[in-house]
Amino acid sequence: MAAVAVRPWKLAALAEAIGATLEGDGDIEIRGAAPLDRAGANDVAFLSDPKYRIHLEATQAAAVILSSREAAAWTGMKARLLATNPYAAYAKAANCLYPEPQPPAGIHPTAAVAATARVAPDASIGPNATIGEQAVVGARSIVGAGCVVGEQVIIGDDVRLHPRVVIYPRCVIGDRCVLHSGCVIGADGFGFANESGRWLKIPQIGRVVLHSDVEIGANTTIDRGALDDTIVEEGAKIDNLVQIGHNCVVGAHAAIAGCAGISGSVKIGKYCRIGGAAMIGGHLSIVDGAVVAAATPIFSSIETPGMYSGVYPVQLHRQWQKNAVQLRQLDTLYKRVRTLEKALAGETPVEKSEDKED
Amino acid sequence: MAAVAVRPWKLAALAEAIGATLEGDGDIEIRGAAPLDRAGANDVAFLSDPKYRIHLEATQAAAVILSSREAAAWTGMKARLLATNPYAAYAKAANCLYPEPQPPAGIHPTAAVAATARVAPDASIGPNATIGEQAVVGARSIVGAGCVVGEQVIIGDDVRLHPRVVIYPRCVIGDRCVLHSGCVIGADGFGFANESGRWLKIPQIGRVVLHSDVEIGANTTIDRGALDDTIVEEGAKIDNLVQIGHNCVVGAHAAIAGCAGISGSVKIGKYCRIGGAAMIGGHLSIVDGAVVAAATPIFSSIETPGMYSGVYPVQLHRQWQKNAVQLRQLDTLYKRVRTLEKALAGETPVEKSEDKED
Amino acid sequence: MAAVAVRPWKLAALAEAIGATLEGDGDIEIRGAAPLDRAGANDVAFLSDPKYRIHLEATQAAAVILSSREAAAWTGMKARLLATNPYAAYAKAANCLYPEPQPPAGIHPTAAVAATARVAPDASIGPNATIGEQAVVGARSIVGAGCVVGEQVIIGDDVRLHPRVVIYPRCVIGDRCVLHSGCVIGADGFGFANESGRWLKIPQIGRVVLHSDVEIGANTTIDRGALDDTIVEEGAKIDNLVQIGHNCVVGAHAAIAGCAGISGSVKIGKYCRIGGAAMIGGHLSIVDGAVVAAATPIFSSIETPGMYSGVYPVQLHRQWQKNAVQLRQLDTLYKRVRTLEKALAGETPVEKSEDKED
Repeated sequence: MAAVAVRPWKLAALAEAIGATLEGDGDIEIRGAAPLDRAGANDVAFLSDPKYRIHLEATQAAAVILSSREAAAWTGMKARLLATNPYAAYAKAANCLYPEPQPPAGIHPTAAVAATARVAPDASIGPNATIGEQAVVGARSIVGAGCVVGEQVIIGDDVRLHPRVVIYPRCVIGDRCVLHSGCVIGADGFGFANESGRWLKIPQIGRVVLHSDVEIGANTTIDRGALDDTIVEEGAKIDNLVQIGHNCVVGAHAAIAGCAGISGSVKIGKYCRIGGAAMIGGHLSIVDGAVVAAATPIFSSIETPGMYSGVYPVQLHRQWQKNAVQLRQLDTLYKRVRTLEKALAGETPVEKSEDKED
Repeated sequence: MAAVAVRPWKLAALAEAIGATLEGDGDIEIRGAAPLDRAGANDVAFLSDPKYRIHLEATQAAAVILSSREAAAWTGMKARLLATNPYAAYAKAANCLYPEPQPPAGIHPTAAVAATARVAPDASIGPNATIGEQAVVGARSIVGAGCVVGEQVIIGDDVRLHPRVVIYPRCVIGDRCVLHSGCVIGADGFGFANESGRWLKIPQIGRVVLHSDVEIGANTTIDRGALDDTIVEEGAKIDNLVQIGHNCVVGAHAAIAGCAGISGSVKIGKYCRIGGAAMIGGHLSIVDGAVVAAATPIFSSIETPGMYSGVYPVQLHRQWQKNAVQLRQLDTLYKRVRTLEKALAGETPVEKSEDKED
Repeated sequence: MAAVAVRPWKLAALAEAIGATLEGDGDIEIRGAAPLDRAGANDVAFLSDPKYRIHLEATQAAAVILSSREAAAWTGMKARLLATNPYAAYAKAANCLYPEPQPPAGIHPTAAVAATARVAPDASIGPNATIGEQAVVGARSIVGAGCVVGEQVIIGDDVRLHPRVVIYPRCVIGDRCVLHSGCVIGADGFGFANESGRWLKIPQIGRVVLHSDVEIGANTTIDRGALDDTIVEEGAKIDNLVQIGHNCVVGAHAAIAGCAGISGSVKIGKYCRIGGAAMIGGHLSIVDGAVVAAATPIFSSIETPGMYSGVYPVQLHRQWQKNAVQLRQLDTLYKRVRTLEKALAGETPVEKSEDKED
């Protein structure tokens, strides 16, 4: 069942709001969004990935957002919303139908707000939240229940901190950023000097600075810089349980999927896409627009755009075991092939190769 | 030292409670559970894995839970609790001896409970917890300190939320679920549409629905669905720091170990076991009962039950470096072997192969 | 820009405090620490990694911490602080300049402290924190905003819990430990017995015991033992988003980088270094001083010190695809090489090998 829209729209108004061309009855009331195959008589659906085209003819949706090319091939009588980028148009429609709820402005009585903090009058500070000395919370920003905003933190306008976010002292959160529950912004980077076997802590005196329109996933951690700042540029999106080490720079509009680990002092270029559970070693640089496949560990800088992969192919365990044995001595196998080639070329006789495996 | 039992039991009563056959003195008072080799005169121990059999003769335990086969081979004079599944029987015994503490029913004065929330009178709401508008907390359920339960969340009966759990609005938590500290249920899935390089957020309007008897580990994140719900079926157990993407379905009685990453729209079958730090790519389906080894990335659906592995075998770094060089050109090595075979079969002459490595 | 020091120091006093030999004007006031290439006239900088030597001549720093060897080669007129271990000396200097802020002693009015808890008078309990029954908080220790300290937890002296740490009942935190936001100490280990397909929970009755001078990163989880305790020995440092399973022992002065996963009952030796996103399988033992490379999965115990690696080398995706095909049948390739060797040695004729790939 589709979630009921927070706010219903007339189809004509919705088309205009999302910049789509309407074909059909603009007076239909749209009360929700749903997949093609499960949409009801007052839902809007969309077709972006051609593999879902099979659901088009039978859809019960009031209207479908799709490209004019797909629309041309579609004989159905339903209303259409023609868009060059149907998925983006759908995103806009869904944001019209399901606007984020706005908690009441003001400071909840159970919140602990320092006397020297400056909270915009139209900001909302939730139950059991804590705002530190000299912190600033901008216009219309929302600090969820149980959040802890450290001393001298600066939060811009229209920011949403979901419940239980922690922001360490002096960090900066740009306008319209969205931070999900449990994320920790500005904890100390992992910096220790070794003195005869013991670790001496290096104070982490930089900050984390999130530019505008950044989204950070649940339980993700972004460490403050050692001396410089850790920076996430405009529009970058970071998923859940991602670790970003100290002094990193994440380029504008980059996307980093869940469970990825970015070591310290890494520079991720603009528009990069880093797959889930990928791992990027310290002090590396990833060129603008590069794509790193999921689960791929990166140990040298990437200077040429493209998609990079590095995962062991999965197999049934017993077959994997056999291959792993050979893989451990791949260099030996290679040398044996060289020997064979030389022999066949008449360069050298074949010697019986030692072979622990036989 | 074994932790002292919360509640002591006479051995006969314990045997009956766990459905084991008692051989020996039923009047012994059992005050704790401990490993065979460290159990004291009032502890119960168990033997499940045969490799611990060596500790049997010398054990000081008051009684040992074990199979009749193991018992037959054991000449010791200690009391025995015969069980067909000794580990399961031990689990039941330990639950008798160490019941979870029950905090007092009622709402702590520092908790913030919305006026429209419905909290069962015998439920317990801990210090600094927050319960949103129209949320429901069922009979005997425990909401730990600092938890945040969102608007319209439904929590069943006998649920235990350890401190500082966050449940986003509208999610559903089934009876007897256990959620550990820091887990985040129902944060937005990672869904964005790209429009000329910028990311547009796709509202995530589905929910997370946990069926009954599900356990979720500390700091694990389960994202709400984009349009449909993310579902964890009855009895599934999920460890710490696991990420489960939007629209996933985790089958009944599946177990997912720590640090695993499950991408969006994945269907994990019933009774599956997913190893620690395994990674499963988006939109895949894992057949009922399949086992994925730890640290294994999965990029295609698994249709046949069995154990699947895919990890690079570890070596001393310098040996790994040599093999990695060859692995990068394994396809070339394969072609060279083909050439040699053709040559030997008299099909073609051998040409000197190009070889950057020589 | 360098962060302004919390406390300025005369260079001579700073030299003495860090045990360095001063060459130059001891009266200069040091107001901050900064990298060589960005330090200002009142900043101290350091040279440890020779690759930054290029910045030495042009640095504007008031003084540079470096080895006498580097100093000898440096013709600059700036003051020098000669140290045998410049990075360690810098760590000490930075700690002088940027001491951690000390919140006021006492219990914040919004904190919920159980009547039977014992909190040192000079300890600090932050806003919305919760301290359980019979818990102990030692001298000068700091419990940050929103922390939850369970029943009977023992926290030593000079401990710092950053905001929103959770410590489950009965765990022990040694003197001078630092725990970062969101970490969860003592949640239940992942222990279940399987009885005809359903999972029975094994009560986790051990504790987590952190010895002195341990640092735990943000959102890291350390599970309590099943029967015994999980132990982190003196001086060990653990980064963000690390999972440590039940019954593990992490040796003194070991360092574990972000996103690493340590399964249950693992013994990590003293002085070990575990790379980011490494994964260590259950019940293994890692010898003192061993180094595990980042992203490396370990499935057997390591008995000889050294550096161990095991990651698939990254490539452009299309090349990776070709190699992965061959890797899946590496064992076959190996056998074909054997056949060729035998043939060339005149032992057997060559048979046309079956080859699905041709």
